[in-house]
Amino acid sequence: MFTQHTVRSFDKELNRLSKEIAEMGTYAAHIVERSILAIMRDDQKLAKQVISDDIFLDVAERKIDEEAILIIARRQPMAVDLREIIGAIRISVDLERVGDMGKNIAKRTAVLSDVRQTAAFYHGLEDFAALALKQLNEVLDAYACRSLERIDAVREHDDEIDSMYTSLFRDLLTYMLEDPRNITVCTHLLFCAKNIERIGDHATNIAKTVHYVITGTYPALERPKDDQTYRLEIGKSRRIL
Amino acid sequence: MFTQHTVRSFDKELNRLSKEIAEMGTYAAHIVERSILAIMRDDQKLAKQVISDDIFLDVAERKIDEEAILIIARRQPMAVDLREIIGAIRISVDLERVGDMGKNIAKRTAVLSDVRQTAAFYHGLEDFAALALKQLNEVLDAYACRSLERIDAVREHDDEIDSMYTSLFRDLLTYMLEDPRNITVCTHLLFCAKNIERIGDHATNIAKTVHYVITGTYPALERPKDDQTYRLEIGKSRRIL
Repeated sequence: MFTQHTVRSFDKELNRLSKEIAEMGTYAAHIVERSILAIMRDDQKLAKQVISDDIFLDVAERKIDEEAILIIARRQPMAVDLREIIGAIRISVDLERVGDMGKNIAKRTAVLSDVRQTAAFYHGLEDFAALALKQLNEVLDAYACRSLERIDAVREHDDEIDSMYTSLFRDLLTYMLEDPRNITVCTHLLFCAKNIERIGDHATNIAKTVHYVITGTYPALERPKDDQTYRLEIGKSRRIL
Repeated sequence: MFTQHTVRSFDKELNRLSKEIAEMGTYAAHIVERSILAIMRDDQKLAKQVISDDIFLDVAERKIDEEAILIIARRQPMAVDLREIIGAIRISVDLERVGDMGKNIAKRTAVLSDVRQTAAFYHGLEDFAALALKQLNEVLDAYACRSLERIDAVREHDDEIDSMYTSLFRDLLTYMLEDPRNITVCTHLLFCAKNIERIGDHATNIAKTVHYVITGTYPALERPKDDQTYRLEIGKSRRIL
């Protein structure tokens, strides 16, 4: 009886950790969504709210960390249980950084407000954020049901993120080259785009961690990522330069 | 005798983990130094070498991770020993990302070669990288001697990184506004600067982890970081826009 009871409360602890990760993931995605909304709508109040709300993710990360370490010390778990706990620590780090990306985007709302441009400048960013958040949500779903198949499926979308980022980068660089008055706004939008690309990277990191939690091994070290923006000068700039 | 022997080999395992972190730190700093050298000297061969060498950090991170988990499973450590091991896992994540920053910088060498500018464009980046690497090395030294005083001292330098980044950002934006032919080169240099700023962030993360390893608590959640670049439009662009 005692052992069974002990096992049961251990399971409860692990389930709580999982649930906290899920909540943290939902909150991180929410921070990013609202940061994009703040930029789209030029909503300074919302931007400020997002910037201050990010602290909840810092607190959640520490809480998960402390709980995880307490569980290890108290339960001395082996194999898959230990992987669950180490996995929770790693995923919480990535989710906290996703929140930071949202906060960084929200911080640019103020300066973007001063140099407001037509809606066309921002749509690419909105679509790109939607794609990155879709990937994050898929990876969190795959974590929730510990599904290896779904994790592998998510990782196949990395290329979509890469190509959308390249296209957005090219568009923004083109706007800058067309008219120097676009430089400030586009520079800040480029950094927003980079932040969103990094959300995709964090989703990929989480996918790798989930793979490890399930199987005990990390996926093979991947092909070098083909980020075309490192070669981007685009036709137009080549002509000008 | 047996117990003593067991303890001794446990200590050996922990020391090896520490040593591997130190080596990983040295290698990560080396990757970044060489990436900056590649940009300064327009050295494509060196850039390619840096990009391919980054894999060693991915491998090192996984090795440390696997060893750490094996030690936890085998030794079931408590308190400070457990913190040492969790600390090693966290620090290796940050060091792997520092290497990624170096790789990202190296990747821009090719496009920067096509739009080569006078040396003045690159000096700010070189000085900024030197400052970030100084901070990283200090934090690694503080980790090596588990010194709380030195860790707190390192964290006070965060402001220097912030202000140097703001100044570099302003200079690059000014070059762009002065002459549209500078846009491509400055956009890529801005991303390099952002990568270096993130090396500073990783050094700060490591400092927090070392604080945790030594004391069992994380430092208080800090003041919101005062990154002036989020407000940067600079005088010149205000006039133009």
